[in-house]
Amino acid sequence: MIWNLARRTARMNPSVLRELLSLTEQRDIISFAGGVPSPSSFPVQAFAAACEKVLRQDGAAALQYASSEGYGPLREIIAATLPWPVKPDEVLITTGSQQGLDLLAKVLIDPGAPVAVETPTYLGALQAFAVCEPKFIGLPCGDDGLDLDAFSSQARDARFLYLLPNYQNPTGRTMPASARHALVERASEMGLPLLEDNPYGELWFGEPPPLPLTALNPEGCIYLGSLSKILAPGLRLGFVVAPRALRAKLLQAKQAADLHTPSFNQRLAADILQGGFLQHHGSAIRALYRGQRDAMLAALDREMRGLDVAFNRPDGGMFVWLRLPAGFNAAALLPRAVELGVAFVPGEAFFVDTPDPRCVRLSFATATREQMDTGISVLAQLIRESSSATIFDNN
Amino acid sequence: MIWNLARRTARMNPSVLRELLSLTEQRDIISFAGGVPSPSSFPVQAFAAACEKVLRQDGAAALQYASSEGYGPLREIIAATLPWPVKPDEVLITTGSQQGLDLLAKVLIDPGAPVAVETPTYLGALQAFAVCEPKFIGLPCGDDGLDLDAFSSQARDARFLYLLPNYQNPTGRTMPASARHALVERASEMGLPLLEDNPYGELWFGEPPPLPLTALNPEGCIYLGSLSKILAPGLRLGFVVAPRALRAKLLQAKQAADLHTPSFNQRLAADILQGGFLQHHGSAIRALYRGQRDAMLAALDREMRGLDVAFNRPDGGMFVWLRLPAGFNAAALLPRAVELGVAFVPGEAFFVDTPDPRCVRLSFATATREQMDTGISVLAQLIRESSSATIFDNN
Repeated sequence: MIWNLARRTARMNPSVLRELLSLTEQRDIISFAGGVPSPSSFPVQAFAAACEKVLRQDGAAALQYASSEGYGPLREIIAATLPWPVKPDEVLITTGSQQGLDLLAKVLIDPGAPVAVETPTYLGALQAFAVCEPKFIGLPCGDDGLDLDAFSSQARDARFLYLLPNYQNPTGRTMPASARHALVERASEMGLPLLEDNPYGELWFGEPPPLPLTALNPEGCIYLGSLSKILAPGLRLGFVVAPRALRAKLLQAKQAADLHTPSFNQRLAADILQGGFLQHHGSAIRALYRGQRDAMLAALDREMRGLDVAFNRPDGGMFVWLRLPAGFNAAALLPRAVELGVAFVPGEAFFVDTPDPRCVRLSFATATREQMDTGISVLAQLIRESSSATIFDNN
Repeated sequence: MIWNLARRTARMNPSVLRELLSLTEQRDIISFAGGVPSPSSFPVQAFAAACEKVLRQDGAAALQYASSEGYGPLREIIAATLPWPVKPDEVLITTGSQQGLDLLAKVLIDPGAPVAVETPTYLGALQAFAVCEPKFIGLPCGDDGLDLDAFSSQARDARFLYLLPNYQNPTGRTMPASARHALVERASEMGLPLLEDNPYGELWFGEPPPLPLTALNPEGCIYLGSLSKILAPGLRLGFVVAPRALRAKLLQAKQAADLHTPSFNQRLAADILQGGFLQHHGSAIRALYRGQRDAMLAALDREMRGLDVAFNRPDGGMFVWLRLPAGFNAAALLPRAVELGVAFVPGEAFFVDTPDPRCVRLSFATATREQMDTGISVLAQLIRESSSATIFDNN
């Protein structure tokens, strides 16, 4: 049997991250690698109560086929939580926000079409888009937001610009309000759609993040949201809010992709979220992750002192972005760190253009404080030893 | 804002079926249109018990991100139920078998590539494939199986042949064992992969269907299975068993599509299915649908007597395939039937080439026996009246 694979499969590759995570899950390891929420944040009791109630009151419907758009009451709840006017029928429920990326790729990306992204950016988005074979344009991004000159000059023909303005994966950065306004205005002048991905927006530690880009110009933006970080990722519940021009095609793509998102899961989420659950639960998970970030930063402040290591102080989310001393290569450092019982993600996987080999993504979501103290100390020691010559960038 | 839609969106269209179903759900109507399982077949109590147990024993893992391949124990159970040797790690869990179609399209279909299908065939497969812009080749199929001459002459360059050998949607037909052997042999000679979709295989009424095509030649076939008909569709659980050459790319496509199928749902299914649940439940749902089929056939035998109406007597599944008298057009008849309170699906939507406008798909899955008696009587009366001139094919 000869299997003729589609050309697009050449763009589909094993996730570096995935390979890495499976490596680090093999044994007792302190992992700053995973981007997964803390299981202690999952409202297991609320789920148990919701399962009992949904099956008792609505069992047959919860287990039956359902509409591709999503469960009405869940769409209402989501529409009501968004900080700009959104009607429930403008919310398309997806099987995780990852599926939103897949559907948008199908509807907007032709092979060879330019697609602009912040670089570095979320690897899963690159993978979802890659199936439709775009030409990626990486736009530099800093603490002050996207480089607008690069945006104007390099992204003019792009189908859209993809970005995560809040507590970005992998950098933990948040785009300031002024940069959001400037970007939305520039994109509008260029007639270029913005694809805003906001999985971490509710995980703010000081004050809420600035308004989403989409709130500033709903007709020029597509918004992707997720219940994975505020409720539980194992349900696979996300959503897309898109301008009218895209909705019919997105719905058809959704129907072709998996008919609909599990009806039982949508009913569980609607049951849990109704009545202001998030007001209480949101505060609890923010406090949890804030404590985690504080512990990670305290360990970094203490252990990295005197080393030529830079790291940021994210205002939310799950990630610290760290830069190793000049000459270091994070990917080359990793195997030695794993031997010593500590895992992280080398930043290079997140770049679409020339990667910065010195970058490291550290997740503070799941490690205990003891593990942070130990793990960061091990990393600092490793950097210190390596500075005297072993692990260097061999580019 | 100018939205440049991808070229493939021209192939994405509203489902005729979907539009139709929404029409017929509006009021008190006797529906033979839907292809959904009977909700009375859903083991609601078993789900309630499984929810309680899974959340109590394994709550954090059930609500967390999980591997893209699927939940190990569920893969083991599925592998063990298949009637040929399959290892658990050869089973890829998908978000319904509809997602299996989406993933296979991505991995196997280039724009313009020929893809062969039985005609008529499952509309959802055509929609999933269409996103990747194939050229469809419709192969005639009868009660004795596929036309092998047409297959050899017309499908030589096809990427694969898609078919549903058991209680096919829409025709209710089952391919005889001898035809399966002949098809597998011919496909093997041609080096042409078979994509076998088997959502209805467990719904047999007399004796089990012949062995799957895949069991006859696992290296030349891809098998799609579903828990939608034997457990519940609202979970969205399906699976793909593919030869080694495809597995890595399918897994990467799966990961890009939605990261993984909901971990909670997979654990619920594994908990329910372990310990031989299907032996008991399978008998119960077979008896249920057998009774439904018998009632539908009894009503058809009684009411259609003397009319030039042909219909088959399916050995399983959910559908009867009926052909109206010469000159009739099912789509033209439908609005009048809906006015009289009865819905069905005109068969033309299921054809990739010239449709037979006289065909009708009747689902016997959900109507009560009273509804069948009344609904079939209404249809017969309508055909009788229309035969004396009103509704004719205007092709």
